[in-house]
Order: sequence, then structure tokens, then C-alpha cells
Amino acid sequence: MKNRFCTGFTAGAAAAGLKKKKGARDLGIIYSEVPATAAGVFTRNRVQAAPVRLDRERIAAGVCRAIIVNSGNANCCTGSKGMADAVAMGRFAADALGVAEETVLVASTGVIGQPLDIEKVATAMPDLVASLRPDGLDDVAEAMMTTDLAPKVVSRTGEIDGHPFTVVGAAKGSGMIRPDMATMLCFVCTDAGAAAETLQTSLSRSVDRSFNRITVDGDTSTNDTVLVMANGRSSAVVDSPEREAVFGAVLDEVLMELARMIVRDGEGATKLVEIAVTGAESDAAARLVADTVAHSNLVKTALFGEDANWGRIIAAVGRAGTPIDPDRIDIRFDDVLMVEGGMGGGEAAEVRATRVLKTPEFTISIDLNMGEGGASALTCDFSLEYVRINADYRS
Amino acid sequence: MKNRFCTGFTAGAAAAGLKKKKGARDLGIIYSEVPATAAGVFTRNRVQAAPVRLDRERIAAGVCRAIIVNSGNANCCTGSKGMADAVAMGRFAADALGVAEETVLVASTGVIGQPLDIEKVATAMPDLVASLRPDGLDDVAEAMMTTDLAPKVVSRTGEIDGHPFTVVGAAKGSGMIRPDMATMLCFVCTDAGAAAETLQTSLSRSVDRSFNRITVDGDTSTNDTVLVMANGRSSAVVDSPEREAVFGAVLDEVLMELARMIVRDGEGATKLVEIAVTGAESDAAARLVADTVAHSNLVKTALFGEDANWGRIIAAVGRAGTPIDPDRIDIRFDDVLMVEGGMGGGEAAEVRATRVLKTPEFTISIDLNMGEGGASALTCDFSLEYVRINADYRS
Repeated sequence: MKNRFCTGFTAGAAAAGLKKKKGARDLGIIYSEVPATAAGVFTRNRVQAAPVRLDRERIAAGVCRAIIVNSGNANCCTGSKGMADAVAMGRFAADALGVAEETVLVASTGVIGQPLDIEKVATAMPDLVASLRPDGLDDVAEAMMTTDLAPKVVSRTGEIDGHPFTVVGAAKGSGMIRPDMATMLCFVCTDAGAAAETLQTSLSRSVDRSFNRITVDGDTSTNDTVLVMANGRSSAVVDSPEREAVFGAVLDEVLMELARMIVRDGEGATKLVEIAVTGAESDAAARLVADTVAHSNLVKTALFGEDANWGRIIAAVGRAGTPIDPDRIDIRFDDVLMVEGGMGGGEAAEVRATRVLKTPEFTISIDLNMGEGGASALTCDFSLEYVRINADYRS
Repeated sequence: MKNRFCTGFTAGAAAAGLKKKKGARDLGIIYSEVPATAAGVFTRNRVQAAPVRLDRERIAAGVCRAIIVNSGNANCCTGSKGMADAVAMGRFAADALGVAEETVLVASTGVIGQPLDIEKVATAMPDLVASLRPDGLDDVAEAMMTTDLAPKVVSRTGEIDGHPFTVVGAAKGSGMIRPDMATMLCFVCTDAGAAAETLQTSLSRSVDRSFNRITVDGDTSTNDTVLVMANGRSSAVVDSPEREAVFGAVLDEVLMELARMIVRDGEGATKLVEIAVTGAESDAAARLVADTVAHSNLVKTALFGEDANWGRIIAAVGRAGTPIDPDRIDIRFDDVLMVEGGMGGGEAAEVRATRVLKTPEFTISIDLNMGEGGASALTCDFSLEYVRINADYRS
């Protein structure tokens, strides 16, 4: 079943021949029939792909009519030709749609350091524009997949003063990073109305609670991009703190679910694991601990081995760089208390914990018993398949 | 051939039954016939094994007669019994050797969170002390191995004012971390004479240039310990800045070679790779870049795949958190210029770079062309075998 899209948006996809697989769709487009307000969040990597640099400039105006995206090539480390290609890609879409060039945003994902074959994009433009239709976002989600195993689309609805609105997002990525790029892309459309600044505030907050809380392998992409467009076609208007809260909660739901989908589809991942830290001196300290455990290769390989190896967890907690008292730490696998006051619960606990580890999704709760701070992070296991995928990716 | 040891030191090993493998030596001892000055460097992990906490206290006096070490159990997260066991282990050695209890240092390596079977240590003490002999350090190196494939001993000589001296070190570990513990241990003996403070200064500086510049998987152990004993049995005395420089250079050589041996024996490693960064704004910035590249799972899996995937290197440089200009970066694989001004050198360069990648040891040089800062780091590739070892370690 196709995902329901928002009023006033259409989307579509086409095959431009940028992906190795012949005939695979690798070009996507999202179009707003009316000028939409827009906001974006981009990678913090200092090496940034040409389309990221272009979008940063264009998003400042807070208006967007269309997003064009390709997979198969990241258009990163491609010099001045790369920037010219990103601009050209946007212009092709602007011309075909009859909108101003500055209102088109551009995104790319794939291998770094190879020139984009812009002629192929030009050739595919008629097909791409012809594919636009109200339920086309699933096709965009598919077209931007690289090593993703599944397309990722989430739709949620809310209500402001009795006026319903929809938030729909499409994402690709297997975590903070994808092979050669780890590119995570996410495009969100809503028919709610909101000023660009309001949209930016909501987006930044939601990203911090969703995409910034996940990891697959700890590398940060040069192409990470999250864009949101609000076209105001519903009567729901986000123009007060209370309404921002309502809208933000729906946006949170969409982005958090997309984030979960990304980790679940993490390269080689067989398990989706939440690291929930409580009892820290502050939320920031809790976050540091959650991130350190979530990133630890030793914890992640133990998860793959379905081994309740809490020693690795406690060692990661210890190197997180925040004050802890080893003798106060409690660790649970779901509801199984494995470590109490820094010491292991023995064989009975281990048998029960191992049962939890054999399930595909579970939570590791770490109580530091130092204060009231809490935070969580989503991670996946680190499997043989991850190494295979990443040793062989370009060949 | 046994490694030559220092005058006035003896060492030996015995099987206590702490390792799973029956009859394997898992207990080692190093003895100084006269009181030696001593210095130590320990893990910065906030979770610290009982022997680490004990040694930190004892090393403050700057005197050491013996070091006793076991493998098979890290004696970490073992509560008050753990500390009592560490103290007992030291006392057994002190009693057997007839030296003061406070002058014995203790080290452990192995699985976290399981109580040490101290009775087994007590039972093995007569064998252990009987094994002491001048060329026994190789046996200690073997007895402290866990997943190490090879024992690691390095011996170098120097001369101060015509007086020769020797520095011999034994280490275990596969990097910053070992499975369940990543424990890296290193014991150094010298017949040079030096005040404890001098020894500490020299050791801290050398460790910063050697063990602190290597990584296998980026986790930091709860048991990392480097100890040095100087017995003054040679006539070489380290009592001036010039003499410290001579001694420090020899100590550097020993620790850097041991560090290389540890990375070469990294879990699952098939390649030893130096990441050499130049042209940074400062040495600190260069170090940050070298460390980030050396730790990147994507770079390390590409090394395993013998793939000249410079896009992953440049993406890691970009997220290191230090100012860089992507358009100025040059990258070489040994002498092959693969990236110039942030752009790839094309197929011819890639063919030559791939030839370098197929060798077991090479250097990746990254010139940021921003300033005069430089630093390097040693890393290994990230292989299928690493995941296998760490998924299965406890089972």
C-alpha cells in the first residue's frame, strides 16, 4: 500500500543510469504546488558535498518549491565541476517545473570523489517530471536507497484547533554513516502552515531527538541532509508556542520512527538496541554515556554474538569522560537485572539476559545512580556482514 | 633465542589454572634483586580494576621489588573481594621473595566481572618463584597473553658517559582494547639508575609517543598498566637533562617497538598502517585528525578490503573537529599521490595505490596544507576475524 501524502505535494522517481544496477530508479523529485516554507539541517562534517553547500545557501530564504535527489553518486570532493553540476541539477528541475531556480533544493548520495554524470540527469528529466503524482513519495524513498535494504516512509497526522494536518517523511541511510558516504537523507513534507523560523526551530529540536541519537558505525557523512517543507494547504497553522508543541510532537514521531527504521536497516545489523541511561549527574552526562556505549565496537560485536557481556558495557561507561561511581552502576537487559552496584548478577541472571539478547529488539538500561539526568541512544549490532559490506563496497 | 635481560633482574612464569587452556602458563613474576625506583602509567578509564587501584597507591612511594601478573581474569568489577585478592596476590609474592609487601606491584588481564580464584594463585606460588631466572622475561610475556598471537619483548641498549645500560620491556595486548578488557600491559626493566620522579617523567613522555598513539578498536581498557623499574645496577645514571634525553630515546625505542608489535598483533589484523598527518594548524590538530582517521571503522574496513577508498579518509578528516580546507588536502599511500587539492588522482593513481594496499605495512600520509603541525598514529585493518573474535570471546 502506498503511503498517503500531504495535500498539495506530489513526488516521483526515474532511472537515470547513475546506479550500477541497470534500470534501477536513482533520481527522485518532490514538488509543492504552492511555495512552501522550508528549513534544513545539514552534516557537521567540514568536508561537505556540493549539494549540501548549495542548499545551505538557498535554505536561508526559507522558501522551497521542489527537492531533487540522486543516488549512485555523492557529488562530494568533485571540485568546481561538482558545484556546477549541483546548480545544473537544480536548474533542470526548476525549468521543467516552471519554478524559480533558487527555490529548488538538491541532494546527492553515493560514492565520494567521482564526477557526477550530469548528462544522464538531464536526459532523465522528462521521465522524472512525468512521474510526479500524489502518492509518489514511496518511489522517491526507493530511488534514494544505496545499501539500504528497505525504503523508509513514515506518515503521521495531528490536529491544531480542530484543523487536521499531516507530516510525511522519507529517509535513506543505515545510520550516522553509509559506506563511502554514510549519507543519511530525509525529506519531510507537511500541509501545516508555519513560518520558516518556526519550522527551523521545530526541525532542529526533532533532529536532536531522533537522527542525532542513532549510530551504526560512528562516522559522520559528508552529505547528511534533513529538509522539511510546509505548504500551509491545511488550515492548521503553527503560530504559537502551544501549536508548535503540537506540531513538534508529530514531527518528533515521524523523525524518531524514521531514525528507528534507519538503525534497523543498519549495514549488516541483526538487532535494534536502545541504550537508556538514567541517574546521571545531568542529561548531557547521560547522553555522553549512552553515545559511548552505543558506539563501542566491543559492545556491538557482543550484541552480534548474543553475549550478555556486561563487562564491555561497564568499560565503555567508564571511558565516557563523565563522573561515575563504578560501584553504583545497575545494568538491565530489558527487565533482567544483570549488574547491581557494579557487580554481576551471576549465572541465573546471565541465562535470563541471554534470552533477551536473542530477541531482535531490546533495551539496555544503565542506571548510574548519581543524579536525575537521562538520555538514550539507538544502536545496532556489529556483524560479519558489516565488515563484508564495507570491505567490498566499491569493488 | 631468549631475550637478554638486565643485570639484577630475574623473571619467570607458571601455570595456575586461571586460563581455560589446561597447563597454559598464566602467572608471571619479575624480581629486582635490589630495591628499584619505579614509575607507572595507568588507564584513564573511570572504571579501574582492583590491581590498578592498588598499584596507583603503591607506586607513589617510587620503589618496587617485584611485579606479579596473571592472565585469564581481569579482577575488575569484583568489589571488595577483588581488592582483597589483589592485595593477597601481592602478599604471596612478597612472602615468597622475602620483600616488603608495599614494594610488590600487581597486574591482571582477562575477563571482567568474575571473581579471581585466589587459591589457584596461592597454590602456584612455589612453582612461580622457582621459575625465576635471568632470561625469564619471555616466559612472562607468554604467560600474560590472552588473545595475543605472539609474545612481545623488546630489548635496547644505550650509553651514558661511556656506561652502557639496557632497557627491556615486555607487553601484551592487541591495541587500546582487548576483548572484555582490551587490557594492555607493559613492564619495563632497566639497569640504569634514576630517581623515581625522573623515571616517571621519562615514562609519561614515552607512553605519549608510543602506546597513546595506537588503536585497534578505540575502546580503552579498565586494566591498562605500564610499569618501569630501574635498579641502578649499571653505572649509567640518569641525573641530568642530557642524560634523561639519552635514556628517554632508548625508552622511546623500546615502547614504540612494543606498540608496533601490539598493533601488528591487533585482533584479526592483517595490516599495520601508519596515519601520518602534516600541514596542520598545530600538532594537536594533526593528532586529532590522525586519531580520527585511525579509529574510523569505514577506513579500517576499506583497508581490510585493500580498497584505496580515499573518500572515507577525507570524510574522517572532515569530522575530526579541527579547521581544514577540503580543497587543500593531499593524500598519499606510501609514495603514491592519490588525492591532490581534495580531488582524486584518477585510475592510474588508483591502480598504483591498490598495489600499496596489498602490502602488509604501509603509510597513509595526509597533508592538510594549512600550517606546520604534524602527528601520526598506528592502526590496523578491521577484518571479519575481528568480529568473529569479539562476538565469540566469552563463549
